[in-house]
Amino acid sequence: MNPAAVLPDLARLCLHTITTKPWSIETAAAKYSSAGVRGITVWRDALSGRDPAITGQLLRDHGLTIVSLCRGGFFPAPTAEGRAKARDDNRRAIAEAHALGAPLIVLVCGAVPGVPLPESRRQILAGIAALLPDCQAAGVRLAIEPLHPMYADSRSAVNTLGQANDMVEQLQSPHVGVAVDVYHLWWDPALEQEIARCGRLKALLAFHLCDWRTPTTDLLNDRGLMGEGCIPLRQIRAWVEAAGFRGFNEVEVFSTRHWATDQDDYLGTIIQAYREHA
Amino acid sequence: MNPAAVLPDLARLCLHTITTKPWSIETAAAKYSSAGVRGITVWRDALSGRDPAITGQLLRDHGLTIVSLCRGGFFPAPTAEGRAKARDDNRRAIAEAHALGAPLIVLVCGAVPGVPLPESRRQILAGIAALLPDCQAAGVRLAIEPLHPMYADSRSAVNTLGQANDMVEQLQSPHVGVAVDVYHLWWDPALEQEIARCGRLKALLAFHLCDWRTPTTDLLNDRGLMGEGCIPLRQIRAWVEAAGFRGFNEVEVFSTRHWATDQDDYLGTIIQAYREHA
Repeated sequence: MNPAAVLPDLARLCLHTITTKPWSIETAAAKYSSAGVRGITVWRDALSGRDPAITGQLLRDHGLTIVSLCRGGFFPAPTAEGRAKARDDNRRAIAEAHALGAPLIVLVCGAVPGVPLPESRRQILAGIAALLPDCQAAGVRLAIEPLHPMYADSRSAVNTLGQANDMVEQLQSPHVGVAVDVYHLWWDPALEQEIARCGRLKALLAFHLCDWRTPTTDLLNDRGLMGEGCIPLRQIRAWVEAAGFRGFNEVEVFSTRHWATDQDDYLGTIIQAYREHA
Repeated sequence: MNPAAVLPDLARLCLHTITTKPWSIETAAAKYSSAGVRGITVWRDALSGRDPAITGQLLRDHGLTIVSLCRGGFFPAPTAEGRAKARDDNRRAIAEAHALGAPLIVLVCGAVPGVPLPESRRQILAGIAALLPDCQAAGVRLAIEPLHPMYADSRSAVNTLGQANDMVEQLQSPHVGVAVDVYHLWWDPALEQEIARCGRLKALLAFHLCDWRTPTTDLLNDRGLMGEGCIPLRQIRAWVEAAGFRGFNEVEVFSTRHWATDQDDYLGTIIQAYREHA
């Protein structure tokens, strides 16, 4: 399949608040809106000390579409008490998303160094299943985000799109789908076929963009902006669009390097990178 | 399948020279041998400035079995000239292995940020195929080592055991097999079945041990010693042994932290970790 064509405009550009981490959500909303960004994904830390309903209204007043809330998950724990605590936190996330007006919560599913991966995967399935009545009541969906295998120790036992698709099939709920993040999945030889399968499952709910730098100097906070790395972004976008996805292209960049720069200049650089490389 | 039983002795313990990087190969050989280690895998940098035939004899004089030479590979390149250079370097590695008396070369297959992964994979297959006559003449085998997906940008476009097994099937040569390294593969949900498949292909040529630390602070040189991390070592060893593997358990630890310690003490710690956790 040929790579996707250049994006014609910013109509489908969404930024994650963490991408411009030094800004408060109020500053981010004003700046994104002025720059022509149309979507926002809200990280929960950005809501700290705020009423999510009021923040949601503020975002909409700026003309922004609230794409999702990041993040729920972290289901596995060595004890039943730990797992109950995780369920409670996820229920709070669902309530926050509902109040904010976010239709989707992205799930970083969790992993614990002492818990075997197959057991963590069972606990993740059980954890998601327990939330489905809350999702239905709140009108909020959950997106399983498979994470790069380098996070299998402590962040997610779901490390390929194939696994996430399997979980969607097992859960069989209109409230569960998948978030495809190029950073986590670009290396997978089965990526094209699993994106197509995700589309057939009507489960492709979100698409996250950034790039993989060479060398990568930090496992968490050295992501690249689109064009700074080796990920075939337009190839993957072509697969995602061929699978029927018509949602936002979400820019999610954790970068100590970029956070240290002037964020107004950086926003301009993000938009330029989106036009040239996404 | 139940985890493997405790190893009864050191008869199958092999160390990679890079594990005790501060030591010269001559020092390593003497120390390993005194400590009861029976196998050695030689990194090419350890041979620098030496006649490999003389070094090979020295190792055997210490009672050590030479398990493999690390490493060949790095086949992909943007130009035909670059690929020809890689083939030449691999031919030198085969000659070195032959002179040293190493029956096996471990391949880090290579990747280049500007070259798409499918193209790199084709170049890797072609690169290995071109070496097969040299392997046959020298009596040296090649082990494709699938590398962790976090190295897909610049070290290897082969990132799962499934891909390595597919390549073995395509190449259909008695001189090509696979090296299974727990660090690269532990996260893979298909690992048990792919190890079994590798056994059926008679391709499981090497087994490398270390551990995955939480947090991991460096993408290259923060490996853990067995027991310092979350990899289910005895579970994976049980799968490898059920697949028919009877070779050495090779300890390969890149660790700035451990290299900075007294290497005599460290050798004792390695042996203890092998007895308690491998």
